[in-house]
Amino acid sequence: MSRICYVNGRFVKEENAKVSIFDRGFLFADGVYEVTAVVGGRLVDYEPHIDRLYRSMGELKLTLPMSRGQLKRVHLALIGKNALDEGGIYLEVTRGAADRDFAFPDASTKSTVVLFTQARSLVFNADGESGIKVITVPDIRWQRRDIKSVALLAQVLAKQAAREAGAKEAWMHENGVVTEGGSSNAYIVTQDGRILTRPLSNAILPGITRSSLIRVAAEKGLRIEERPFTLAEAFVAAEAFNTAASSFVMPVIAIDGKPVGNGKPGPVTTRLRQIYLDEVVKGAG
Amino acid sequence: MSRICYVNGRFVKEENAKVSIFDRGFLFADGVYEVTAVVGGRLVDYEPHIDRLYRSMGELKLTLPMSRGQLKRVHLALIGKNALDEGGIYLEVTRGAADRDFAFPDASTKSTVVLFTQARSLVFNADGESGIKVITVPDIRWQRRDIKSVALLAQVLAKQAAREAGAKEAWMHENGVVTEGGSSNAYIVTQDGRILTRPLSNAILPGITRSSLIRVAAEKGLRIEERPFTLAEAFVAAEAFNTAASSFVMPVIAIDGKPVGNGKPGPVTTRLRQIYLDEVVKGAG
Repeated sequence: MSRICYVNGRFVKEENAKVSIFDRGFLFADGVYEVTAVVGGRLVDYEPHIDRLYRSMGELKLTLPMSRGQLKRVHLALIGKNALDEGGIYLEVTRGAADRDFAFPDASTKSTVVLFTQARSLVFNADGESGIKVITVPDIRWQRRDIKSVALLAQVLAKQAAREAGAKEAWMHENGVVTEGGSSNAYIVTQDGRILTRPLSNAILPGITRSSLIRVAAEKGLRIEERPFTLAEAFVAAEAFNTAASSFVMPVIAIDGKPVGNGKPGPVTTRLRQIYLDEVVKGAG
Repeated sequence: MSRICYVNGRFVKEENAKVSIFDRGFLFADGVYEVTAVVGGRLVDYEPHIDRLYRSMGELKLTLPMSRGQLKRVHLALIGKNALDEGGIYLEVTRGAADRDFAFPDASTKSTVVLFTQARSLVFNADGESGIKVITVPDIRWQRRDIKSVALLAQVLAKQAAREAGAKEAWMHENGVVTEGGSSNAYIVTQDGRILTRPLSNAILPGITRSSLIRVAAEKGLRIEERPFTLAEAFVAAEAFNTAASSFVMPVIAIDGKPVGNGKPGPVTTRLRQIYLDEVVKGAG
């Protein structure tokens, strides 16, 4: 069954969903994106994702050729047209199609807007129950990782290296300090029970699941400290986990082949996953 | 008049030249490119560009779904179909279209190959006669700049900043040391006549025009030293210039608003531009 996608104002079958070869997303990675989770046909944490989209666009002087209300209606229409119960909606905005030249095209050039759905189990997710293995790789990305751009080649290479090592995510590090995962934020729980994740800066993406989790965890009395941690600290941590819109709170049970704690999802991680499911996912829509 | 472009085995009008929204070039910047100059309907330095293409593809484990001979025939066909006398041919190879997932798609996924022409004056070029102004910006790119990937967002921002400052190129620098231009290699001629350009490493792209110029200059008794130079050295240089396939040897007459030398193209630069035109461009094909 072919998905229905959205491309520049039209709903089209995926085999007809195309953009110009002159699109600046294709030529220059001159675009930004968001992925919003869908559970029970409802959008999870939608408004913060769109806030971040506007923030990314602002940093790059990109404009959206539609209103915020129209954008939400497209999201909802895609859920309906594709009968999407659980998964995600991918949204990309690029600087549009124009003859190739690095500097911005004429102001009349209309941004490209593309959306498509991906069905996936998020709540009853095998990895979420068993946990995943991660590897570590040097963080070779550019210095504006706070912008959620489609210039993702370094992340592609990191995630491919993970797969080749039998792992599902790669934690990136600079000078021995963990930045984040290839498509997730990274956390450890220390042996004395502190929950640590790197503070926001240009060095990491401001995760939406991250910020929601920090908030709802605090409401339940669990403090997540925003403090950088090293690879050395990760290797002796009691627990580890990732957060992302596509995986919520994901236990990490091994780093570079070494078990984290007893090699199973730990109690703090399990509790945080449940809190996120109860407080954020159930309130979706 | 609409150009004829090449997309995955077919020659199509530019308005019909499209790729899937699932193309990994569009979603992940998971692709590489080359731009080969055309003068008098003939390809300039073609074989080294294709050598570099294969090198970039090898670093990313990309494959070309056609032979090297077929690729050259497509270049020549585009010159013919578009009656291209002078300008360039852009070539992009991506990891193809597949449902969105960071790690590499199934090995059966065929790479996307796109080519198009751009007409432009290269030999009798106003900028080449008058020289251009450049600005300087911090180099915020990733750490594998030796791979000619389409993850060009940092360069887009640098070149846009140049335009907004009334300049045509941005020289990027790290810790006060010049890496290269947004789409060119950077050179200075010191007050005592030494010609300097940064040595090859992961920090810069191995320019084809750069390597050809070093070779033909040496044949004419002009030694270009591969030695890093600082912004401070650039500001007191006698001359400065860039090289790129799209501009050959391009005099730089001001850096951050300060004139280089007497603010006009210098004699060494002018001689090098002529040597490149005589020895490389005239021998094209």
